[in-house]
Amino acid sequence: MNNIIVCIGYDGTLFHGYQKQQKERSVQATLEGCLSHIFKQPIHTISAGRTDAGVHAFKQYINFCVESSHIPFDKICKVLNTMLPRDIQAYWSREISMDFHARYDALKRIYYYQVFEGEVAPPFLRHYCLNIPEGLDWNAIQEDFDAIIGTHDFSAFSSYNKQIKNHTRTLEKIDIIDTHIPKRIIFKANGFLWKMVRTIMGTVIERGIYRKQGKPILMNMQEILISKNRSSAGKTAPSHGLFLYNVEYKTVYDIK
Amino acid sequence: MNNIIVCIGYDGTLFHGYQKQQKERSVQATLEGCLSHIFKQPIHTISAGRTDAGVHAFKQYINFCVESSHIPFDKICKVLNTMLPRDIQAYWSREISMDFHARYDALKRIYYYQVFEGEVAPPFLRHYCLNIPEGLDWNAIQEDFDAIIGTHDFSAFSSYNKQIKNHTRTLEKIDIIDTHIPKRIIFKANGFLWKMVRTIMGTVIERGIYRKQGKPILMNMQEILISKNRSSAGKTAPSHGLFLYNVEYKTVYDIK
Repeated sequence: MNNIIVCIGYDGTLFHGYQKQQKERSVQATLEGCLSHIFKQPIHTISAGRTDAGVHAFKQYINFCVESSHIPFDKICKVLNTMLPRDIQAYWSREISMDFHARYDALKRIYYYQVFEGEVAPPFLRHYCLNIPEGLDWNAIQEDFDAIIGTHDFSAFSSYNKQIKNHTRTLEKIDIIDTHIPKRIIFKANGFLWKMVRTIMGTVIERGIYRKQGKPILMNMQEILISKNRSSAGKTAPSHGLFLYNVEYKTVYDIK
Repeated sequence: MNNIIVCIGYDGTLFHGYQKQQKERSVQATLEGCLSHIFKQPIHTISAGRTDAGVHAFKQYINFCVESSHIPFDKICKVLNTMLPRDIQAYWSREISMDFHARYDALKRIYYYQVFEGEVAPPFLRHYCLNIPEGLDWNAIQEDFDAIIGTHDFSAFSSYNKQIKNHTRTLEKIDIIDTHIPKRIIFKANGFLWKMVRTIMGTVIERGIYRKQGKPILMNMQEILISKNRSSAGKTAPSHGLFLYNVEYKTVYDIK
């Protein structure tokens, strides 16, 4: 038995998310279709994170087991790329110890969210950022972010998922990179709850727009966090501005 | 008679350049087709710059004259957007003095070129950056750039165009923004010769790869510049990493 790790990237625009679904096009089903064809047996993959519909992945990690491989392990990605559609790319592949699990072994996850301040984004950014016509006060938003850094129950900033029992995560940092257009907001944590990045983004954007318009803001970020109540937070920001940027494991894997 | 200015952006991937051509799809023909339909008369547009096939535009400025308009000038962009394909976007439109000329009145032009250091770029960057598998020494490249800043005859760094008699341009600055992936290299000048940004990029990348591989480099950047000889410079970098970012006029126009 061999355990194989593959690093992939994808454009989430035309996928109904990572996870396999009955009818809709998914990254997982596309990938498993190709792998099953290569290995002439049904292949089940495990991913570092199951991104939602429209979310992109710069680097996503998957692993799967096969009895044996007629292709050298590091060449599997090349064979995969001859079969994958253009919106998925395999960067590299290799054998890994049998106990490796792409999800459970992930130590850190890094996402970024892209924001374009203006009425309409250029066509080449349409699927890759959220438009904020009003513009935002990024110093105030950095303060909002700072208020929720640390180890907390993030229930207020996530959609309910009955499979998740533990709502505590360690949000290590949120950095605003404003030297480029679009602006990029980078989130790093040991893990994220369902829609957590998008709920945090949606909340700070809503607060930013309220501040601009002089509307009253009832709770500060810390109060929202402590409430553990999803309805205290703002709307979930749209998925197309979100990218899974990277996942950190005990061993460093990187695009080579 | 009215002179109208429109600010547009486009994804150059599926266009054979800005300029109208006999058979191929171009930004100008697409735009003029829509405008002629709106005004029920043939419309001829003037653009700030005629970008090559594959080159994108964040902000491109065009102007055209019409006898009269049944649409308020600032609403022309909205009507245009109902007709334009998704890879062109009109941001705003307004009336401007009759003597305004989008090309001749441009004082400064800003382009950027995107570089991805790695073997394969993620699918969502495929049409928007050049891959450099070897990676580059950006300090050395900044020195290469510094050697050609200023007012010079840039013949060595441009493709021959018999319509251009004056090859002197003032290259104000070249900034490397490396806080994002992909890296973005910003060029600002009063004007650029044909393929000038791409030839400069192609040359510094070639020099960077030679340095990494320990190959001999015969001329330094200043010697190439002084030679006024295109064959002293490197290959022209591919068009898909290049963006017309903005054009500056006496009056400041910006996305609103």
